[in-house]
Order: sequence, then C-alpha cells, then structure tokens
Amino acid sequence: MSIIDKKEVILTGDRPTGPLHLGHYLGSLINRINMQDTHDQYILVADMQALTDNAETPEKVSENVLEVVMDYLAVGIDPIKSKIVLQSQLPDIALLSMIYSNLVTVSRVERNPTVKGELVQKGLERNIPLGFFSYPVSQAADITAFKATVIPAGQDQLPMIELTNEIIRRFNRIYNTDILPETEAIVPKVGRLIGIDGKAKMSKSLANGINLKATPKEIEESVKRMYTDPQHIHVSDPGNVEGNVVFSYLDAFDPDIEGLENLKAHYRRGGLGDGVVKKRLNGILQDLISPIRTERNRIEKDLGEVIRAIEYGTEKANTVVNTTLLEVKSAMGIDYNKNWEKLLREGKPL
Amino acid sequence: MSIIDKKEVILTGDRPTGPLHLGHYLGSLINRINMQDTHDQYILVADMQALTDNAETPEKVSENVLEVVMDYLAVGIDPIKSKIVLQSQLPDIALLSMIYSNLVTVSRVERNPTVKGELVQKGLERNIPLGFFSYPVSQAADITAFKATVIPAGQDQLPMIELTNEIIRRFNRIYNTDILPETEAIVPKVGRLIGIDGKAKMSKSLANGINLKATPKEIEESVKRMYTDPQHIHVSDPGNVEGNVVFSYLDAFDPDIEGLENLKAHYRRGGLGDGVVKKRLNGILQDLISPIRTERNRIEKDLGEVIRAIEYGTEKANTVVNTTLLEVKSAMGIDYNKNWEKLLREGKPL
Repeated sequence: MSIIDKKEVILTGDRPTGPLHLGHYLGSLINRINMQDTHDQYILVADMQALTDNAETPEKVSENVLEVVMDYLAVGIDPIKSKIVLQSQLPDIALLSMIYSNLVTVSRVERNPTVKGELVQKGLERNIPLGFFSYPVSQAADITAFKATVIPAGQDQLPMIELTNEIIRRFNRIYNTDILPETEAIVPKVGRLIGIDGKAKMSKSLANGINLKATPKEIEESVKRMYTDPQHIHVSDPGNVEGNVVFSYLDAFDPDIEGLENLKAHYRRGGLGDGVVKKRLNGILQDLISPIRTERNRIEKDLGEVIRAIEYGTEKANTVVNTTLLEVKSAMGIDYNKNWEKLLREGKPL
Repeated sequence: MSIIDKKEVILTGDRPTGPLHLGHYLGSLINRINMQDTHDQYILVADMQALTDNAETPEKVSENVLEVVMDYLAVGIDPIKSKIVLQSQLPDIALLSMIYSNLVTVSRVERNPTVKGELVQKGLERNIPLGFFSYPVSQAADITAFKATVIPAGQDQLPMIELTNEIIRRFNRIYNTDILPETEAIVPKVGRLIGIDGKAKMSKSLANGINLKATPKEIEESVKRMYTDPQHIHVSDPGNVEGNVVFSYLDAFDPDIEGLENLKAHYRRGGLGDGVVKKRLNGILQDLISPIRTERNRIEKDLGEVIRAIEYGTEKANTVVNTTLLEVKSAMGIDYNKNWEKLLREGKPL
C-alpha cells in the first residue's frame, strides 16, 4: 500500500482457448473473487498470447473469449470491481512490448526456462513462431502497462516474472526514472488440481477436466470416470488416499474437514467402496457448480451484459495503458507532443 | 494501377539518427519528389526502428525527428501530397507486427541475410536486442499497414522485402483472404554516393558526408578534403577518374554531361589540376544546396509548420493503418466488435 492508500494493482488472466474448469476455479477464480475488493484488479483475456501458438486456428481463440468471460461472471467476478480486459483491443501494449524488446537480448530470452521447456516439450527447437518465442517480453508489457505489483503465478511462471523485473530495472536505470514499479509473484498455496484421469494437467483435448458449465449428468459421469486406487479392488481392501483422484478433489472441495479425515481413515482401513466416496464427491461438486451453472444460463441469454462487461473493463484499461505508454515515452524523451509543446512555447529554434 | 485508377501506394522513409546528406538526396529524396504526384506516398520517420539499436541513446533518435523532417520540407517534399508519418505514434502497427510474428519462425528470421550480416558485422552473435532481431517482421507490418505495393529499397534490403511477401502470402493463405497485396521493391538505378573520404558508406561518425543543411564554408571544406587520385601528384601527371571521389560527385550532380566528359578526358591526359576540378564541383554543389539551405533556414524559424506536417501525415496514416488492422483482425475472426454486433443482431445464444 502506498502512503496515499491506493490499492495495489493485480494483473491476472487467462488464455481464452476453452471454457474454464474446476482447476481454474480452485487455482485462480476464488482468489480473484477474494481480491476484487481489496485490490485494483485487471483480468486479461489474453487472446494475443493465445494466438502465439494458435495462429492457424484463430477460431479456437475467438470463440472462447465470450465463453471465458461468461465463466468469470458466473462465478461471481464483478466486472465493475475487476476490470475484464481484452488484450487485442489494446495496441498500446504491443508498442510497449516493442520498446522493451530493445532492452533484452535474443540469448536472454532463450535462457528463459519456460521458453526452453516449451521448446523441448513441443520438439520444435527453433521452429517455433517468433511471437511465441518473444512472449515473455510481451508479458512484461502486459504487467507494466497496468503497473501491476502483484501477479498470481504458478511456480513454472516465476522465471517470466524475473525477466519482467529485469526489464523494469533496466528500463528505470537506462532512462533514469522510477515510473515502472517492480512486480511480485504470489504463488497460490493450493496445488494444481489434477485431471480426472490422474494426469497432472487438465486439458481440453484430454477431456479430463470438469467445466464450470458442466451439466449435472456431466459432473456425475466425470466423477464416475475418476481414477481411484487401482489396488483397491474389493470394498474390503485397504485403499490408498494419496494419488487417488477422488480424494484429491475432496481435499480441494469438501468443506467438512473432520468428516473427510474420518472418511480417509475408513478408506485406508478397508471396507469403504469407491462408489460411496464418489457419491460424496458428486454431491459436493453438484452443490458447488449448480449455482454457477444457473447464473451462467441466465448470462447466456443476455450477451449484451457480457459484451458490456468486456467493453467497460477494456475501456478503463485503455486509459491506464495509454497513460503508462506516455510516461514510458516521456522517460525516453520520445513523447513528442510534449517535446514539441515545449519547443513551441519557448519559441526556440532548434 | 488498379482498374479504378487508384494511385499505387509507396512506402519509404528514414531512420531519424542524423541530418540527411547528399547521399539521401541522390538515392531517395529526388525519387520521392518525383513520385509524390503519381503515387500515394507515405514517408515513415522510423523512430521505432532506429531505437532497436539505439535504446540506450534515445536522444540520438528523438533529437533528429524534426531535423529529418525539416530536410524533407527543405528539398521540396510536399507534406500534403507525401504523408510524413511518425512511426512511434502508430501503436496499431506494433499490434500488426505482433500478429505477424506468429507466422514466422525464429529460424526463418535468423536466416535473413540482413539480420545475419548485421550479427556478424556487429560481432554480437546472439547478444543482439530482440527488437533488432525481430525488426524484419516489424518491417512487414510497416509495409502492409499501408498496403504499400512499391518499396524503394537498396539491393541489401531485398531479402527483407522477400520475407514481407512470405508473411503476406502466408497470412492470405491461412486466413483465406486477399486483403494484403504483395509488394515490390524498386532498386534505384543510381548507385550509392560514396563518402568524401572514398569510403562506401556516408556516416555521421566518420563525418564524411555533406549535409543538406551544410553552410557554404562547410561545402567548400568538404570538397577540399575529398580524395582524388593519390598518383596524381603534379598537375602534368595523368590522373584516374575511376575511384576518384570528386569525379564520382560530378557524375552524380554535374548537369553538363558533355562538359564533364571533356573534363574527364583532360584529367586522364594530364595537365588538369585537382584544384580546378574541385572548384567546378564546389560551384555545382553550392548551387544545388543553396536554395535547400535558404528554404531550411526559413523553416527552422517556423517549427509549427514542421510539426503540423508531421501531425497531418501521421493522422492520415493512422486512419489507413487502423483500417488495415481491422481488416486483418476481421480476416482472422478477431474483430470482436463486428462479431458481437452480429451475435446481438441475431440474438443468438452461443
């Protein structure tokens, strides 16, 4: 908090490449709802970032913008408190990114573990799109455009935040200014929610997540399909709670902690069938998702509300980003309008 | 020319890193003056490009913007016919660049001979700024933003233009459109004017050029310092015309072709001193630069005129670039305003 008691600025967001699921809810949406009163929060619908590896299928991005925003509204994100910002509508951020890209070497970007990891993972080596390669710098532009000082981030994103701070320090040093505040990553305590198939990452293509707009039947079927303990064959067998997807979900969503501990003990001892545990989880998830789905159904019938939410947030963001860009240009001495006004006022020949 | 007799669009420009000199005059300014009636001409004051290798000395760029534009106006560029465009004022171009950077791989940019050459020349290998590395893609954004079909370019810039056309073809193919026209480089017939020291490239740091705002004394001294034939020691010695800087300049600027041929013959025979030849060149250059300098002196006293020229051209350019960006987004299906209007009109649930 600054001395004038201004709220800290938080930047968060999603790549709009599919509807949001319980993993998003647990890992970020709850935090956002909690933060929207205490922080000046911007939620970036990062369509430009999503395009860096979806350039040939832009519909995968464009079709999911409203999807994602409807999910935001359905879970209780207040679009007046939390500005919902559509990235591609803010060219000023792209110009900022261009400015920062002069402050970072190609080899520095290559050393970024996130980029490095993706290179290896995708087996593409240097055949990755330049935009994908450069994205860590664009992310610095996203963050500084809002002068965000708090960034909720996964452990794997910390090197990106470090690069952002390097750029910020370099900018402030070279241009002898302090306009860009350093930013801090906050890593949520809750771990990542695993897929219903036990895989670490929920993904649309694996169909191993439970969407926030899932129907009662979809939820029930997902819970039925959940991996448990493969050694737990008969009800009487002792079962493993660790690595058991159903218990992972109960850990995440069961509000009755004591009841859950008793259930775990029973499962470990043996005598508790997967069906009973799954039934409990199904009830909890139905209760969790039901009001979200109801709200979402209402919202889907009023797209104007969804669009206005984006327009409102993006317009507010545009003012902020535009101001930052002018400050950045001014620090560099390339805010020409300002330079020229001064020249004309002084009537000075060059 | 298209069937509706629209003028072809030409994009040209300069990196504002110093005042313009006779090399610019011969290599591009004359062409621009000739083209401004027959073409829809945009002259880009490429400050963003100049910053890619001047990030630590932005004043080298910012201080030369008005310098360069005053030179334009002084030589006879009409700011109503030729739009003078300040690059950093058009963030839409940066966003276009970001879009194109998803269509090009890192290794493709590396293979670009211009980038490769600069890497070797500057001995920086991969320690070059990302912005400098990526600039060929940004240049594609510059060109397509104006839908320029004619680009005056040096031989060394042809690979850049080829990359631009690759991006254009790839864009049109992927998004099944024809909105981006391919562009054609025109390489001026006149060779590059050498420095007064005989070096191939005029450069500010070598102080081997003659600026368009040079004083009569500066011109005279530059001509005096010009390299001639080192073997031509006595007036009676036969002299070499080839590789002789004074004759290079006479070839470029002497309007009396027959007189010049006679002079060359005399010099080759011997009996013609360098002083006489230099005197002739001095007279010609004084006549050439004198009206430019007079006009420039007038302009320097009216900076408002210079600034208005930039504002006018940049505003016109902004409209064009904005339209292109919307067309590009529309082809990709990410012109959301358009998408949403349609959705709302159709009242269709998603």
